[in-house]
Amino acid sequence: MAEEIKAKEAPKRKVILTGDRPTGRLHVGHYVGSLKRRVELQNSGEYDDIYIMIADAQALTDNADNPEKVRQNIIEVALDYMSCGLDPAKSNLFIQSQVPELTELTFYYMNLVTVSRLQRNPTVKSEIQQRGFETSIPVGFFTYPISQAADITAFDATTVPVGEDQMPMLEQTKEIVHKFNSVYGKALVEPEILLPSNQACLRLPGIDGKAKMSKSLGNCIYLSEESDEIKKKVMSMFTDPTHIKVSVPGKLEGNTVFTYLDAFSKPEHFEAFLPEYANLDELKAHYQRGGLGDVKVKRFLNEVLQAELAPIRERRKELMKDIPYVYEVLKKGSEKAESVAAATLARVKNAMRINYFEDEELIRTQAEQMK
Amino acid sequence: MAEEIKAKEAPKRKVILTGDRPTGRLHVGHYVGSLKRRVELQNSGEYDDIYIMIADAQALTDNADNPEKVRQNIIEVALDYMSCGLDPAKSNLFIQSQVPELTELTFYYMNLVTVSRLQRNPTVKSEIQQRGFETSIPVGFFTYPISQAADITAFDATTVPVGEDQMPMLEQTKEIVHKFNSVYGKALVEPEILLPSNQACLRLPGIDGKAKMSKSLGNCIYLSEESDEIKKKVMSMFTDPTHIKVSVPGKLEGNTVFTYLDAFSKPEHFEAFLPEYANLDELKAHYQRGGLGDVKVKRFLNEVLQAELAPIRERRKELMKDIPYVYEVLKKGSEKAESVAAATLARVKNAMRINYFEDEELIRTQAEQMK
Repeated sequence: MAEEIKAKEAPKRKVILTGDRPTGRLHVGHYVGSLKRRVELQNSGEYDDIYIMIADAQALTDNADNPEKVRQNIIEVALDYMSCGLDPAKSNLFIQSQVPELTELTFYYMNLVTVSRLQRNPTVKSEIQQRGFETSIPVGFFTYPISQAADITAFDATTVPVGEDQMPMLEQTKEIVHKFNSVYGKALVEPEILLPSNQACLRLPGIDGKAKMSKSLGNCIYLSEESDEIKKKVMSMFTDPTHIKVSVPGKLEGNTVFTYLDAFSKPEHFEAFLPEYANLDELKAHYQRGGLGDVKVKRFLNEVLQAELAPIRERRKELMKDIPYVYEVLKKGSEKAESVAAATLARVKNAMRINYFEDEELIRTQAEQMK
Repeated sequence: MAEEIKAKEAPKRKVILTGDRPTGRLHVGHYVGSLKRRVELQNSGEYDDIYIMIADAQALTDNADNPEKVRQNIIEVALDYMSCGLDPAKSNLFIQSQVPELTELTFYYMNLVTVSRLQRNPTVKSEIQQRGFETSIPVGFFTYPISQAADITAFDATTVPVGEDQMPMLEQTKEIVHKFNSVYGKALVEPEILLPSNQACLRLPGIDGKAKMSKSLGNCIYLSEESDEIKKKVMSMFTDPTHIKVSVPGKLEGNTVFTYLDAFSKPEHFEAFLPEYANLDELKAHYQRGGLGDVKVKRFLNEVLQAELAPIRERRKELMKDIPYVYEVLKKGSEKAESVAAATLARVKNAMRINYFEDEELIRTQAEQMK
């Protein structure tokens, strides 16, 4: 039996799993933080399979009272994905709740994790604080690291491209994989985190300089934003509050406009929109020594963002003309995801030996013992 | 939409759901505590459907390291069920893990319960203590009241015949039903507990007089027990330790032999095996006033138990000759259970409105909004 299970081990392929909660449209923070990179990984040709999950079931763990918000935002996230360049022919876009095998895996993994282990998870800890849950944490939210382990392992994912803040989540998944494989026999693939290479891209602040972009703060630039709205938001951006006169030196630290330029500007943008400077370093140097006004820098950032976001917005508008097609993409992706998850689940149940009715050996042995 | 959901409400039928963890053969404690009554309820003809669940998935929540124990005991419990008179033609016997819809329901119900609510559950509290889990409670065990709510609601059960100690579990299920129906629209049926009518039958002590029968204490009489083994166990039973001489008065309180007679003896047993007494009251009176020895009472109890258990043991031996048939019963039962649970799950997902691909209204409305 041990050999049989071993033979059924997953082949060594390179597989990506990642995704987002559909609780709102995606913004430029998502774009530089993850979307742009996903598209690069997709187009690198290095991965055998790429699964991008719209995590509606996870979003419901802390939005159980407001399912309509989740429901309405699935299409928004799908539109954002596809307009950024995630290509259904290369990346499998799917909706989490449409793959019921994930809940079954979660159920069995819950036996391999203790309550106190979940309580120690720093990501969960800080999210509980952020959401002001205190003692009224929904069980589904509390246990979502286990659900994430199911999402990752269901597709034999080897690579999870997420931010450093997700490290504890990946550790939890690895622990579950180790525990499962040691108790029931090796059936699960251990994933690795793929951290962003560019530190500047880790996290983009809101336009007001606050660390967190949020819909309620109104400080996000969305991928679907219209041109005039982008301009308005850029022109109102937080810079250096002590930089009152053009002539005096300005600071770069905490200066949102420069943080955005770090993330978005390329040398060709200077050539096209601000040929007086060869690159961002020259612009920064001028700002720091004084004589460069915020408005000029903001106008440049506006040109940069317009250039970056215009094609995304145009693709989005095209896609919006055919919503049934986008749902069809998600449906096909969910079907593919389900078939792969079902194969993993069969492997898991075989390892746990809870597939009794297919287990002829069990029935034969017991029949003999009882004769 | 609201009306549509209402129209799909479950019809008002009388449905029973109950079951056992397959962690060992069933004993006379199970018989008088629940099995005998289940058979009576089954044969009353009052119920439209009866689901008897072998709760292997629940057993795994605190036996994750020892799946083989659970696996080997499924057939034992099934044999015990059928030899006691649970009839597959009237009662649907099934294995929990073979109905994956239960894990999906559990997953969504987890969003409707807080962690602190689970921590307050007295049944879970005392079971955590009994098992010596302290802080290392597996998450699956901690959350099993939610899983039970899934088991009960999946079959639109109206009636859960269990002991008083399970009251907090039923309360948890009711809370989940209320919460779900108020958040998402009425899709779940509220169950009621059906407590044992006979207080004496609530809980049978072990043959050593200890409150709990357990395999490790070796103080159980199993339903599958051989005749000579039953006699040996009865003759070694705990009685009144102060009743040293036949001539002195004996006490009934805590006297296991009399507790068992309370549970098992019928007037016809006196006629057949102890015609000097008309009934149990006369026997008790004699014991209390002195002059009746333990051995005589034990011999009578032995006759009673032999009479009660012999037909069960015989049926069990017949069934043991055809183990594949018993698995076939469980397979058919699990298939029926799955089809009913799938219908409930569809109703649940419809109420939550997470059946996006079938939701033409969603796709049409969004397409119009985005034009």
